[in-house]
Amino acid sequence: MRFSEALPRSLLRGLPPFIMACFAALAIPVVGAEDCLPCHRQKTPGAVRQWELSAHARVKVGCATCHGSDHARIEKGEARVDLKVCGACHKRALGEHQASRHGMALHTGWGCVRNLPGRNAKECQFCHEDGTGLPTSTVQCARFLKQSAAMGQVGCNACHQVEASCATCHSNHGTDLKIARDPNVCATCHMGPDHPQWEMWQTSRHGTLSTSAPSGTGPTCQTCHMPRGSHDVSAGLTLTSGGERLPDAPRTARRAEMVQICLACHSTAFAKRELERDDAVQQESMALVKEAEAIIGDLFDHGLLDPMPGERPPHPLRGRALVLDAQMLYEDTSHIERLFFKMKKYDFAKTIKGAFHQNPAYTHWYGNAELKMDLVDIKAEAQRLRERKRPPQAAAAPAAEGIEARLRALKAKLDRGGITPEAYRREKAAVLEGGGFQP
Amino acid sequence: MRFSEALPRSLLRGLPPFIMACFAALAIPVVGAEDCLPCHRQKTPGAVRQWELSAHARVKVGCATCHGSDHARIEKGEARVDLKVCGACHKRALGEHQASRHGMALHTGWGCVRNLPGRNAKECQFCHEDGTGLPTSTVQCARFLKQSAAMGQVGCNACHQVEASCATCHSNHGTDLKIARDPNVCATCHMGPDHPQWEMWQTSRHGTLSTSAPSGTGPTCQTCHMPRGSHDVSAGLTLTSGGERLPDAPRTARRAEMVQICLACHSTAFAKRELERDDAVQQESMALVKEAEAIIGDLFDHGLLDPMPGERPPHPLRGRALVLDAQMLYEDTSHIERLFFKMKKYDFAKTIKGAFHQNPAYTHWYGNAELKMDLVDIKAEAQRLRERKRPPQAAAAPAAEGIEARLRALKAKLDRGGITPEAYRREKAAVLEGGGFQP
Amino acid sequence: MRFSEALPRSLLRGLPPFIMACFAALAIPVVGAEDCLPCHRQKTPGAVRQWELSAHARVKVGCATCHGSDHARIEKGEARVDLKVCGACHKRALGEHQASRHGMALHTGWGCVRNLPGRNAKECQFCHEDGTGLPTSTVQCARFLKQSAAMGQVGCNACHQVEASCATCHSNHGTDLKIARDPNVCATCHMGPDHPQWEMWQTSRHGTLSTSAPSGTGPTCQTCHMPRGSHDVSAGLTLTSGGERLPDAPRTARRAEMVQICLACHSTAFAKRELERDDAVQQESMALVKEAEAIIGDLFDHGLLDPMPGERPPHPLRGRALVLDAQMLYEDTSHIERLFFKMKKYDFAKTIKGAFHQNPAYTHWYGNAELKMDLVDIKAEAQRLRERKRPPQAAAAPAAEGIEARLRALKAKLDRGGITPEAYRREKAAVLEGGGFQP
Repeated sequence: MRFSEALPRSLLRGLPPFIMACFAALAIPVVGAEDCLPCHRQKTPGAVRQWELSAHARVKVGCATCHGSDHARIEKGEARVDLKVCGACHKRALGEHQASRHGMALHTGWGCVRNLPGRNAKECQFCHEDGTGLPTSTVQCARFLKQSAAMGQVGCNACHQVEASCATCHSNHGTDLKIARDPNVCATCHMGPDHPQWEMWQTSRHGTLSTSAPSGTGPTCQTCHMPRGSHDVSAGLTLTSGGERLPDAPRTARRAEMVQICLACHSTAFAKRELERDDAVQQESMALVKEAEAIIGDLFDHGLLDPMPGERPPHPLRGRALVLDAQMLYEDTSHIERLFFKMKKYDFAKTIKGAFHQNPAYTHWYGNAELKMDLVDIKAEAQRLRERKRPPQAAAAPAAEGIEARLRALKAKLDRGGITPEAYRREKAAVLEGGGFQP
Repeated sequence: MRFSEALPRSLLRGLPPFIMACFAALAIPVVGAEDCLPCHRQKTPGAVRQWELSAHARVKVGCATCHGSDHARIEKGEARVDLKVCGACHKRALGEHQASRHGMALHTGWGCVRNLPGRNAKECQFCHEDGTGLPTSTVQCARFLKQSAAMGQVGCNACHQVEASCATCHSNHGTDLKIARDPNVCATCHMGPDHPQWEMWQTSRHGTLSTSAPSGTGPTCQTCHMPRGSHDVSAGLTLTSGGERLPDAPRTARRAEMVQICLACHSTAFAKRELERDDAVQQESMALVKEAEAIIGDLFDHGLLDPMPGERPPHPLRGRALVLDAQMLYEDTSHIERLFFKMKKYDFAKTIKGAFHQNPAYTHWYGNAELKMDLVDIKAEAQRLRERKRPPQAAAAPAAEGIEARLRALKAKLDRGGITPEAYRREKAAVLEGGGFQP
Repeated sequence: MRFSEALPRSLLRGLPPFIMACFAALAIPVVGAEDCLPCHRQKTPGAVRQWELSAHARVKVGCATCHGSDHARIEKGEARVDLKVCGACHKRALGEHQASRHGMALHTGWGCVRNLPGRNAKECQFCHEDGTGLPTSTVQCARFLKQSAAMGQVGCNACHQVEASCATCHSNHGTDLKIARDPNVCATCHMGPDHPQWEMWQTSRHGTLSTSAPSGTGPTCQTCHMPRGSHDVSAGLTLTSGGERLPDAPRTARRAEMVQICLACHSTAFAKRELERDDAVQQESMALVKEAEAIIGDLFDHGLLDPMPGERPPHPLRGRALVLDAQMLYEDTSHIERLFFKMKKYDFAKTIKGAFHQNPAYTHWYGNAELKMDLVDIKAEAQRLRERKRPPQAAAAPAAEGIEARLRALKAKLDRGGITPEAYRREKAAVLEGGGFQP
């Protein structure tokens, strides 16, 4: 049964012409939901209810249109409704999505795990269609490769599947655009220590206005990052996903796009000024990260990391090298490198994303203040590692407990206001007396 | 005045028969609110207003029905409206509550503080009815016993009183079920570093759908953990409150309960597959915790903890023993044990609860990544503690600053791309020249 | 054109007399918005829309009334609409605001950066009107002075401008009181690691009732801290912004104010009892902070901080002194001082503010438990710093690896249940055999 036969004319009234064209052009087999519904009303009533309320139900896009009809494969979770299924009709959205960061994921694939010992075959499904060598994802990250199959699914893929699954944002059976347009739907992935964009937006003035002000005056995630319904979520972004500045030409073009979006509420001069201030925050923060990176590089050069890369399990992509870039690990590493992981991956990200999202608490407290404390911690640990192999001159033991040392400490305490002058005189007398001297 | 006299028939229309039966059977003295209201409308207008809007007001369950009429005791906060008061009418809820984890608290009581020196007598009220030895709570936790009376009330009991107080979830004077059915009411206790279930739900797809989708399609805390209004909040839980797997028989029964709940939206096959993936995450995470636990046990065995349990205030329940289980403390302990506290109590909990609540950011970033970094930190601290008593071979001081060492470090820097070949040649030449050699 | 001419009588109906009086008395030039709107409807449609919906638009307070008409200065961001502009009409709010902590900021200014080398001239604008020496702000904090111009604007001033800008809470172009009365508007500043009041309120029972209960029964930030619309946000506060108790006289007066506010819902006896419990939490927490402070003071007195204040960049206000008070820095400091920064500035604040906001998770887990773990960490680091100059007696190397030591460790493992008796016998036998002894 073809589209034109399946629907009485009256049901099609009011449908946008491009949807009509889509059905007609593709000659989609409109498999009625009649076969599935009798059982699934009992077995999965919630899913059926969501579908019944959906635009798909109104135009008779039924269960099998998306899921196919191989019940055994569906049961085993192998008949994934990926973006090719949706893209057959939703062509413009598909194109924009695939050209954006959501569609490109993070990297081109070059780190297949097939040769790593002891790996679960299921991990192939991170990147490949089941049973074939065809890539479905281009996600590439050393952390990802280190993960077990279960963590890879629950922890990594639940977000990174956005590359392949429209349901990540649109939910599985409903089509209500309220869902996809709610900042909450972005939160599931864009939250947490590595990039709390949702938290930043929610408590920024933009978020506040969005929640409290007359409808429409406050911007959501989608207002700025998916302007006019575009699926190109990278519009206006001048930094790479690692927080580095884009090269000048794309940077200038992307900035112009963002300023154009700001103009809905702000003047050009104001928007540029604010964004340039955020640029400065990015540059200053990057300098702190580079300072820490140089300290760790120097320790490596002198063989002082503990353990050194050669003394621990090899990096899945880079072996025995020191890895401090986007493929840095948080496991099988040294304490100082793990401090650097927090600094770069969490606190650097919070500082700069906090600035661009106009959130002072994230920019300063969660971001900049932590960055600077990270640097203090990294310097202290570097000093410890250096002294581990070359201890500082021990204070001459007798002198340190002697009368001179005790008097000197007492004087320092007096100078910083830690003791009253009277108590100072009393304790000083006691020290002298204890030493056999007349106070 | 008895129930049947107090209410005109017309007021009783529409009341469920079991409420009628409850009043009649118990012959509850319906003390009119008339005595209290004239004053309390002035003194506590908010409380009166909440009561006036409540179902209790409609059926003339007045102030004294719950609070009694001993004004002096009420003023002193001694006339607690505990679950026995509510349970007199709400029998089914009381039974389910008491049979669930909410009702059992965490432990059977065996650690009375009466013999600990310097303890405030008020601390008896953590567990006992005032002025009697009757237990009101079975909460048992060493952290709890270490607390001051004030912190015990504000920090511990505000949540753990759920065992004894229906108002924990239902609020004090209102009866609006919107309150008790709002996930927010769960948040006050089920949040924070030790078990952020509310945060996990809120930003999961379940939470998102609950907020954005047409009413009724997204599950709340109550949908899955209090199905059909049950007060047995333990339904479907396959782990102990410490995150260990239940024995096989109850585990199988509890899992079947939860899958039944998932079926409202998902297929059996999907629900089982997802929950089994979460099981795997639990097992893998527990293995990391056990690895850290073994490291600390070994340090203890060799007398290397700093301070050792024998050198610090005794554990309130276990004295000088090494305590790394559910009664582990976060005070009067060593640095490495406190790192383990964070690992087990916070990050292990976040990983596994994040998985079961389908929240990728909690499972991975807040959970698994922190777990693995904790292990890095614990290994580094263990190494420091071992070397503290047995320093590593110090590098021969002259060699370390000599020309050979500096050239070796320079070569490592070149190899990791930390210096350009040109700069390498320049710096190498400078080293050689500085050493009196022709470069 | 003056007010009386600009508005037809009909438009003025229903305006409160004091607004009428305000316009009349000040003879505000009602510059029509006509000059600006034709362009700005194109250039900044959102701002125009917000204004059109505002009370200002209804009474013809147009663009130039607040922004002036010097277009060049406006473009450069120099024509700030500060509280003097708003205060011309809103006199009562201005007075209350300036007398409160919002108006006084944190300190009287005494640390001008003009003489610090390498500082950006823009930093003068933190405190002074552009181009003049007139102070616009009295904010004073060493962290603030260490910041770059960009971070100062994005990170510090975005909040601390509350002293000078009504728009911080009221937004820029709208006047909808829903915005200023929404707790979210407080969140932008009152959130994060240093004072998460918004998070505390949101998940407390007060916040829960506010979200779920019949409108009006749950208190918001404004209910308790801006009672009856007052702009004196300090009402009822008994602690300084650093968490110290106010002197007795103002403390008693402030407490009475707060109890009065609680009476809307609670009894006097209950409110006092709860607040006194919170007082106890503050005292106990302060004692922990003082314990840590004394440890660090002692290390300083003995020259053991690493680095010592004399070995690092000078504090912008206090030079080479040890600074552990409100002007303590989180950069250019030692690891142990940075641990203390977290303890005092973050965890102490969370504990006491958590208690006063009735949030058990913040009081205990985010607050008290962290405070106590901070103390563990600080003691461990202090021990390390002491031993750095005076290593602990190294265990006699042969003994530690000898049979006696291995047997002793094995026995400890048995005693703590880390090994079964059977495995103990087996391993013990192996040790003895390995040593050439008959087991």
